[in-house]
Amino acid sequence: MKLNVKDMDIATGGPLVAILNGKDAGKLDIHNMDRIKIKKGRKIETVALNITESSKTVPVGSIGVYEEVLDSLKLKNKDKVTINLTRKPLSIEFIKKKLDGKSLSKKEIDQIVWDIVHNKLSAPELTFFVAACYTNLVSISETIMLTRAMARHGDILNLDKYPVIDKHSIGGIPGNRTTMVLVPIIAASGLTIPKTSSRSITSPAGTADTMEVLAKVSFPIKKMKRIIAKTNGCIVWGGSLNLAPADDKIINVEKTLEIDAESQLLASIMAKKYSVSSTHILIDIPIGNGAKVKNKEEALKLKKDFEEIGKKLRKHVKVIITDGSQPIGNGIGPALEARDVLWLLSRDKRRPLDLEKKCVAMAYEIFKMVGIKEGKKKVLKILNSGRAYNKMKEIIRAQQGGIFNPEKIKIGKFKYDVAANKTGIVKRIDNRTISRIARIAGAPLNRGTGIYLYRHVGDKVKKNHKLFTIYSESRQKLEFAKEALKNTNGFVVK
Amino acid sequence: MKLNVKDMDIATGGPLVAILNGKDAGKLDIHNMDRIKIKKGRKIETVALNITESSKTVPVGSIGVYEEVLDSLKLKNKDKVTINLTRKPLSIEFIKKKLDGKSLSKKEIDQIVWDIVHNKLSAPELTFFVAACYTNLVSISETIMLTRAMARHGDILNLDKYPVIDKHSIGGIPGNRTTMVLVPIIAASGLTIPKTSSRSITSPAGTADTMEVLAKVSFPIKKMKRIIAKTNGCIVWGGSLNLAPADDKIINVEKTLEIDAESQLLASIMAKKYSVSSTHILIDIPIGNGAKVKNKEEALKLKKDFEEIGKKLRKHVKVIITDGSQPIGNGIGPALEARDVLWLLSRDKRRPLDLEKKCVAMAYEIFKMVGIKEGKKKVLKILNSGRAYNKMKEIIRAQQGGIFNPEKIKIGKFKYDVAANKTGIVKRIDNRTISRIARIAGAPLNRGTGIYLYRHVGDKVKKNHKLFTIYSESRQKLEFAKEALKNTNGFVVK
Repeated sequence: MKLNVKDMDIATGGPLVAILNGKDAGKLDIHNMDRIKIKKGRKIETVALNITESSKTVPVGSIGVYEEVLDSLKLKNKDKVTINLTRKPLSIEFIKKKLDGKSLSKKEIDQIVWDIVHNKLSAPELTFFVAACYTNLVSISETIMLTRAMARHGDILNLDKYPVIDKHSIGGIPGNRTTMVLVPIIAASGLTIPKTSSRSITSPAGTADTMEVLAKVSFPIKKMKRIIAKTNGCIVWGGSLNLAPADDKIINVEKTLEIDAESQLLASIMAKKYSVSSTHILIDIPIGNGAKVKNKEEALKLKKDFEEIGKKLRKHVKVIITDGSQPIGNGIGPALEARDVLWLLSRDKRRPLDLEKKCVAMAYEIFKMVGIKEGKKKVLKILNSGRAYNKMKEIIRAQQGGIFNPEKIKIGKFKYDVAANKTGIVKRIDNRTISRIARIAGAPLNRGTGIYLYRHVGDKVKKNHKLFTIYSESRQKLEFAKEALKNTNGFVVK
Repeated sequence: MKLNVKDMDIATGGPLVAILNGKDAGKLDIHNMDRIKIKKGRKIETVALNITESSKTVPVGSIGVYEEVLDSLKLKNKDKVTINLTRKPLSIEFIKKKLDGKSLSKKEIDQIVWDIVHNKLSAPELTFFVAACYTNLVSISETIMLTRAMARHGDILNLDKYPVIDKHSIGGIPGNRTTMVLVPIIAASGLTIPKTSSRSITSPAGTADTMEVLAKVSFPIKKMKRIIAKTNGCIVWGGSLNLAPADDKIINVEKTLEIDAESQLLASIMAKKYSVSSTHILIDIPIGNGAKVKNKEEALKLKKDFEEIGKKLRKHVKVIITDGSQPIGNGIGPALEARDVLWLLSRDKRRPLDLEKKCVAMAYEIFKMVGIKEGKKKVLKILNSGRAYNKMKEIIRAQQGGIFNPEKIKIGKFKYDVAANKTGIVKRIDNRTISRIARIAGAPLNRGTGIYLYRHVGDKVKKNHKLFTIYSESRQKLEFAKEALKNTNGFVVK
């Protein structure tokens, strides 16, 4: 069948989709979600089909084409193409198999991941896969196959180094900006640490957002390699690279329902590590309110699974379970967290000691993993000698940044102090409330916006003394944040 | 936030969706699949949001709006609207609950169905619900709640009659056009039978497609009521009515992966019966190759569940398990099946006796259910006296049709005879192959296209004698069908 291209002027954000008028679809006995081959000259692309009954959307004799298909076939409006009915992607059968609770083979998982990466699955089809993995037990061996497949169907950063260090903190704790302290410490010690981080989705700041206050974070993989060659490390945004791209598409679907399949969490983290060729990986599982992992039992199960997957992937994996019951560090929000990090590295008096303690312990664990003796002493020496700070400056420079001085970081000019309503001891700080207030004030999009904490759990406080300050770049958003304080400010003082 | 409406010129086919540029979404901290309230004057509609990074799709300051939202708010291109972030539909939480394997309450199921009917769920969200029902056990009491909710959130046909008869044959068997024989028999007996039927999805003909050869099948519910008042029955297309509309949306998602959740099958059938106020329902479960129900064990389980649901809904339900191992009747395809039906009712010699036998048995079951004695004798009398044929003519007339004479039905003019390749007995006829050939030849869209069988299982056949004829309205499609015969013609002769 010959048809005229109609540019729909919309991107699907992934899936390769075209739309056909119901009358044309009927002639070919094609149904919604069937696959067709679109041919233009020698170029061929297989796409999923939507059917419309409205000839305003797509008239008879035309085919509506979304941006992704337009790009793939280099089509223009009114181009002529031919179409043919073709088979559905092989992975549909395998997704159904998993939905029926059966185990998948390596080949089957590979095919699913390939189809995801190449946008061959429609949104409902991908959703069925995510639901199948969520509801039906995914074995450790399937998780490993999924990890390998996700990494393989994406770019791989090959570094001619051993060991290659990596770390990952599971999310949900405000602050907790360990990466930006650990990378300079590890890199300063001579070890290689090619760190990729994410942006915030629901938190007041991701590591990539925070690093971006000081330097650029989006680089092609070649440039990332050059930064590492120069400085032993980097702190870049994983989203700018094509590492395990299937993972991001799966996470997007999970976000719809805010679900987190354990197998998917494991595969997701390990695939990214696999993609950058890490050999020694430290995983930090904080537990507490608002954290992804709610209790010790869950954390221990996850620890066991991480270690087993690590072994099977021939990676050294060490898992630590840490306290995530309150924010870590004083600054919450990109600029305030970046300032904390630079204060810490430059040994400023105002540096957050809780964050420092955690980072020192983590660096020590990494040193232990690679057999460095007297690790704790060495970590402190790297910090106190200024070598970590110098390394951070090197990395910032290599990442085309220009801010090295914590005092140069711009903090939002509108502010509001929140005081204790009685004298006593801080018994609890609610992570979710603190995150929420910071986000309402404008974080992470307004980089200078956030919260600065003066007190942590266990600290004494007097009535009317400051608990924290909200900073905002917008007077209106600060008002919204003040409004949100009415129910609770997140602090329990007794 | 004030925005300009951009008419996207596309219908989603259901879900209420708008698109915002990423930059505007960032300002409001809105994410993909979040919900916004769109306000235009006094009209407000809550919709799911997609985010685009392409300002070609939706520029900053605009909001892209799909047809469904456009209609709901009576918007025009370049209208000004205000938007606000709002909560996700309540049912998202309940879908997650079901995905976690928990039982849902009546209220929760009701909310999900309401949100489905009112297009409040996005395609992935609805997919998660279907997957949750498919993978996690849905109890009989949940199925009943789902049935009631699906019926209640749609139109209800209230008939001031008792009893009200209904029947349903579970699909997959070519031919098997029992409805078009049973409705006139039952209606001729004085009982009321408001039958709604479906169109074909993957078979060569649905009852609605076949009835449409003789009369109209799309009517509003008021008109359907008038037809029933006049003739005691009707044979109309369920899709033209708003009966249990959630069901159709759920089935659409199931089709993506060709899955069939048992609970959904039960609820789907029973909700449609509930909507037309039937009191006595005969369910026919054919088993055999290509049938929806594969074996006796499955059929017995389904029978038990149907009976239990019937009891809980206070309906008289009778389930019969029948032989579905080969096509029933001689004609396959709308016109050929309609001709079979009229031959049967007009007592023509060429009538298909297997279909007649089945229909007589089913009518007898229905008579038994309502306490009519000597039912079999009465059924045969209604048929042989011509009363059923006269009733069918009445119904055709009431449904604005004009074909009463089987010889007036147009059959495709291109034909091809398929002969036995040896002498022997027909051991098997493959339902799937017969359906496939008929569809490739153009059924059900080309009404006159299909297959006419001369032999059934157990019949003797001589080498080179005709097994069946393929009729087509298109010379090319007939060639395609002949091509498809190369592997197998569906007949096993031994």
